[in-house]
Amino acid sequence: MRRLVMFNRVSADGYFASEDGKLDWVVPEKELDKAAAERIGGFDTVLFGRRTYEMFASFWPKALADPKTAPNPHGPERSPEMHAMAVMLNEATKLVFSKTLKDATWQNSHIVRDFSAREIEALKKQQGKDIIIFGSGSIVTLLAENNLIDEYQLLVQPVLLGSGKPLIRDGSHRAKINLQEAKGYPSGNVMLRYVRS
Amino acid sequence: MRRLVMFNRVSADGYFASEDGKLDWVVPEKELDKAAAERIGGFDTVLFGRRTYEMFASFWPKALADPKTAPNPHGPERSPEMHAMAVMLNEATKLVFSKTLKDATWQNSHIVRDFSAREIEALKKQQGKDIIIFGSGSIVTLLAENNLIDEYQLLVQPVLLGSGKPLIRDGSHRAKINLQEAKGYPSGNVMLRYVRS
Repeated sequence: MRRLVMFNRVSADGYFASEDGKLDWVVPEKELDKAAAERIGGFDTVLFGRRTYEMFASFWPKALADPKTAPNPHGPERSPEMHAMAVMLNEATKLVFSKTLKDATWQNSHIVRDFSAREIEALKKQQGKDIIIFGSGSIVTLLAENNLIDEYQLLVQPVLLGSGKPLIRDGSHRAKINLQEAKGYPSGNVMLRYVRS
Repeated sequence: MRRLVMFNRVSADGYFASEDGKLDWVVPEKELDKAAAERIGGFDTVLFGRRTYEMFASFWPKALADPKTAPNPHGPERSPEMHAMAVMLNEATKLVFSKTLKDATWQNSHIVRDFSAREIEALKKQQGKDIIIFGSGSIVTLLAENNLIDEYQLLVQPVLLGSGKPLIRDGSHRAKINLQEAKGYPSGNVMLRYVRS
């Protein structure tokens, strides 16, 4: 059975996105990027909501292009961590849940019009590496409601946003989750890792 | 200068209160209760919004009464931790921020009709022990907006609520905060402690 892992950065006051949708509040942490790069090869499928897909699709397909022209939010040089992330994201099967998206031209992308818990269960039973979801609060909410997420990775930023979007919202399903790790980093980031009960 | 400390339990998905306002989602942690009881004597003033005040005022004034009749959410026996908490809360100066509350009969309570950052600054300059605020999301938001909170203690519960109230909301003030502690407990609770930058 493939595992479905959620990764999100959240502010200390509990938001995964600012109202303006920008990521300028994120505090980088080199040590975490390295650890993430080491594990990223364990995934071959990525789930997306439309907004996160469009954000990723505007950056990652070009991330391995000419280093002089490629935009790079982490600085002027492409790091080995970014390289590993770009390779995984570009090669992975990408499922975009959207009722409105016209087309998804990033390689290996597939638009899924209707969310179906049964189809996600079937996907998890297929052969393959593990499945990951970044951002995509609306889809994370649906997955959590249906108890389909095996591991929650919350990277708590040392930042108060004051307002923003909660990661899971308008849901009705409460769940106890099991803490696996709570680790602070020099940057002030804290990784909270939970598995499904 | 007296320090102003905020303590709140939050769900892993970032809510400090469920939509129904009940606390049945909180996961108890004996070790943390003990540590809190040891520090509680360092406070002599408590700030409240109306809802949290009414919740506290319905319980704590009676918490040291006849043990056979006193309600006790932690079990049939009053613990030393509850005793310390009750003594501090009953004796402390309590400022309730509310435009509507008719009267505040819990001993040493004072209603404050209008929030004023200058008056909180003046309060912090008075002689006395430190000041604490529990719950009270609307007041925490105002205090955070005005950069008046010296320490944020967030006790992250191993629970997804699915929906609820964000602790700080409709605010416009972003702030970097400094991580002091990130500690996981056997119950799955995680204490995140930050100080003002």
